[in-house]
Amino acid sequence: MADNKKMVEAITSMEEDFAQWYTDVVIKAELIDYTSVKGCMVIKPAGYAIWELIQKQLDARFKETGVENVYLPMFIPESLLQKEKDHVEGFAPEVAWVTHGGLNPLQERLCVRPTSETLFCDFYKNDIHSYRDLPKVYNQWCSVVRWEKETRPFLRSREFLWQEGHTAHATAEDAEARTIQMLNVYAQFCEEVLAIPVVKGQKTEKEKFAGAVATYTIEALMHDGKALQSGTSHNFGDGFAKAFDIQFADKDNTLKHVHQTSWGMTTRLIGALIMVHGDNDGLVMPPAVAPIQVAIVPIQQKKEGVLDKTYELRDMLKAAGVRVKVEDSEKTPGFKFSETEMRGYPLRVEIGPKDIEAGKCLLFRRDTREKMEVSLDELESKVTELLATMQVEMLERARAHREEHTYVATNMAEFEKLFTEKSGFVKAMWCEDQACEDVIKEKLSVTSRCMPFEQEHIADTCVCCGKPAKKMVYWGRAY
Amino acid sequence: MADNKKMVEAITSMEEDFAQWYTDVVIKAELIDYTSVKGCMVIKPAGYAIWELIQKQLDARFKETGVENVYLPMFIPESLLQKEKDHVEGFAPEVAWVTHGGLNPLQERLCVRPTSETLFCDFYKNDIHSYRDLPKVYNQWCSVVRWEKETRPFLRSREFLWQEGHTAHATAEDAEARTIQMLNVYAQFCEEVLAIPVVKGQKTEKEKFAGAVATYTIEALMHDGKALQSGTSHNFGDGFAKAFDIQFADKDNTLKHVHQTSWGMTTRLIGALIMVHGDNDGLVMPPAVAPIQVAIVPIQQKKEGVLDKTYELRDMLKAAGVRVKVEDSEKTPGFKFSETEMRGYPLRVEIGPKDIEAGKCLLFRRDTREKMEVSLDELESKVTELLATMQVEMLERARAHREEHTYVATNMAEFEKLFTEKSGFVKAMWCEDQACEDVIKEKLSVTSRCMPFEQEHIADTCVCCGKPAKKMVYWGRAY
Repeated sequence: MADNKKMVEAITSMEEDFAQWYTDVVIKAELIDYTSVKGCMVIKPAGYAIWELIQKQLDARFKETGVENVYLPMFIPESLLQKEKDHVEGFAPEVAWVTHGGLNPLQERLCVRPTSETLFCDFYKNDIHSYRDLPKVYNQWCSVVRWEKETRPFLRSREFLWQEGHTAHATAEDAEARTIQMLNVYAQFCEEVLAIPVVKGQKTEKEKFAGAVATYTIEALMHDGKALQSGTSHNFGDGFAKAFDIQFADKDNTLKHVHQTSWGMTTRLIGALIMVHGDNDGLVMPPAVAPIQVAIVPIQQKKEGVLDKTYELRDMLKAAGVRVKVEDSEKTPGFKFSETEMRGYPLRVEIGPKDIEAGKCLLFRRDTREKMEVSLDELESKVTELLATMQVEMLERARAHREEHTYVATNMAEFEKLFTEKSGFVKAMWCEDQACEDVIKEKLSVTSRCMPFEQEHIADTCVCCGKPAKKMVYWGRAY
Repeated sequence: MADNKKMVEAITSMEEDFAQWYTDVVIKAELIDYTSVKGCMVIKPAGYAIWELIQKQLDARFKETGVENVYLPMFIPESLLQKEKDHVEGFAPEVAWVTHGGLNPLQERLCVRPTSETLFCDFYKNDIHSYRDLPKVYNQWCSVVRWEKETRPFLRSREFLWQEGHTAHATAEDAEARTIQMLNVYAQFCEEVLAIPVVKGQKTEKEKFAGAVATYTIEALMHDGKALQSGTSHNFGDGFAKAFDIQFADKDNTLKHVHQTSWGMTTRLIGALIMVHGDNDGLVMPPAVAPIQVAIVPIQQKKEGVLDKTYELRDMLKAAGVRVKVEDSEKTPGFKFSETEMRGYPLRVEIGPKDIEAGKCLLFRRDTREKMEVSLDELESKVTELLATMQVEMLERARAHREEHTYVATNMAEFEKLFTEKSGFVKAMWCEDQACEDVIKEKLSVTSRCMPFEQEHIADTCVCCGKPAKKMVYWGRAY
């Protein structure tokens, strides 16, 4: 146990300093490394393998709804970025500019895409002619750049990986339906794959995306009670289409502007996984996105037959579709226990000479830290069953945590007290006047997270001004 | 047939103008589109789907050899790029420079990665300490930028997609073994998946990668007799390790520099697919990378039962693991025939009311243009069999074409005559003196493609200077 202790001591506890705990986990679990490029990180194999599992499962869900993948250039000419007024105002202050190609200055500056609405519009303008060309339901997996001042691994970095869907439709109704459809895909993905419960809702005018008519969001609650915007879906109406002149000949032979949407999810989901499920021993991965689901740790591995047995068990589990690894390095079992816990592998099999003789092993469950003796005959079925159980229970646990940390405020005094004493979501009524939103943001240092689809009637009046309330809003401190 | 003709007429024949034929195919098969960003293209769904199939199958082959995926920043600080002398000289003239982040000038210019050796070295310097940390066998899928003056879709563009593997090893032998191993992975992938035969060999000193000790290549011959470098694998020795100070404590407790490799394949493989297999009707896709392997075209689709039958056949083929699509748009059958041929779908099923009554259909094979009547009971087995046959025969046909266009020259007169009258590979002996390579390049406008692993003794003397020959070299005009 000495080795075990030694490794765990290096992590700050989350109760002591949540931000430091987070940084410790991303480093100790070997998810990322810092680089010489300020604000940019290396995503190491353990981190990238999570992203690959996210990509694979999200992409499959996209394709079921008819999404096709494409790839557009990473550069946007300055004149193109400037075509939609709100959009350029939102992004110009935080883009990286390419001014030289080889040894020569460029005639026109190019920005490295912070998002690709303008490029998709430029493409759609040439690609869409008739109602027969619609809808276009395209997506790309790529990296984007936003010149952030303060950065944090996965949560906010100057370059990050994401997917961005961009669609064009014949009618406003079709665009709105796709916007909501993709938000639902995101919400289901978060709950079913990442085991992260989310609140679905609409952003306020103040918080919506630059150039959008409406922005929808899924909001998750982290273990420290802070909110994380985990995916957004935007309805652009025909604003971009008018700015970029994207028209099609409709069935009635008149020219009409298309209606557009965009929607994105990023590597910050890995940050969400850490902050929703992690504990003071490190990462805790939901089985569906765990690159390694089962680690097999041999005890007294130099004794004859021990390693052979672990390889046999590995092959058996692998054949059953389980992502499994034998920890057969020279490190001590204690070190391996600590390491597999730090990396959040859902299950660990411990097996030594005596266990083999008795035809059994010890199974350790990372999320609850339960240990159970399992006969080797039943190992495969027990592992499969536990992985499924953990996936469900981790979601339930996260949902319970969110419920416990969701509060209600009906006046400013309550509101202020809640954000002073507690950390979580606060539900409160709002008159829909941005002045109140501004006051709340300034006084309480919180932002409106969303106007949830599931509205509740908490009070008759706005929590801030006392005028008649129109919407119930989730408020929180956000990453 | 009128519709069919009409569509095909829009393509220049390859005998008339191969370059124009190529451009026509990439546009008409809807693989790419041009953009407002000079030298950059949009990869459209039909093109990107090919890249996804390449990625998936190549990545699986990488992982079987122990490769782990990572992601490094897209920016390289100028000082980092300059650390290895040969490397910076090779790349500095063709990189894009970021000089501003948001509204402010950067303290140090960043280039958009043209390749990531320097970033991997910077990362490995911190990540490698002991022999226990070795080997590192990392790869990343990303886009890179090289500020080319003349660009062509897939073959040469300012931004392109690729994978770049970067490894670090304890010994020179391990690095050389990995370099060759990955070249073999590439060669097998080209032959087994892309149905493109390749010559494996080593680049001359003149043609090797900037900073490498040795560069290995696979060279393919296009239909017009020009060569295409289709993948490269570099052994860096410890040159980068010394420039970046990447050392490890070996088993004998002494500090040693690591030995490194890198290897890459790009979206230009899609260009190779077009130019090796395509014909005057458009693209011809090998089944293994065909996004659609079978198109089902209903005849008289408005007649009752016809569309239902096509959906039934689609579901049957899909269940058998075939990538299949029903062409159920309003277009005429003739137009659909032409379109499916242009897109290179390996097989086409044609089925109308009379066929359904007779329990049969017509099966069209894209590569040979054979048509055969097949009973519906046997369709699934016939399709599976034909897809496998086509995959093999397309490789054989491409190999036969290459053999027919590979010539031998023993003196400069023969050499010159061959490149005046023919187009293809020319094998010739070489003294290993770069002066001769320069003379040949200037006189014949050809480059040395590689010194093949399978050396042959063609003559005793260098084709250029007549001195004793040391190596047999493949020469060609290259894309």
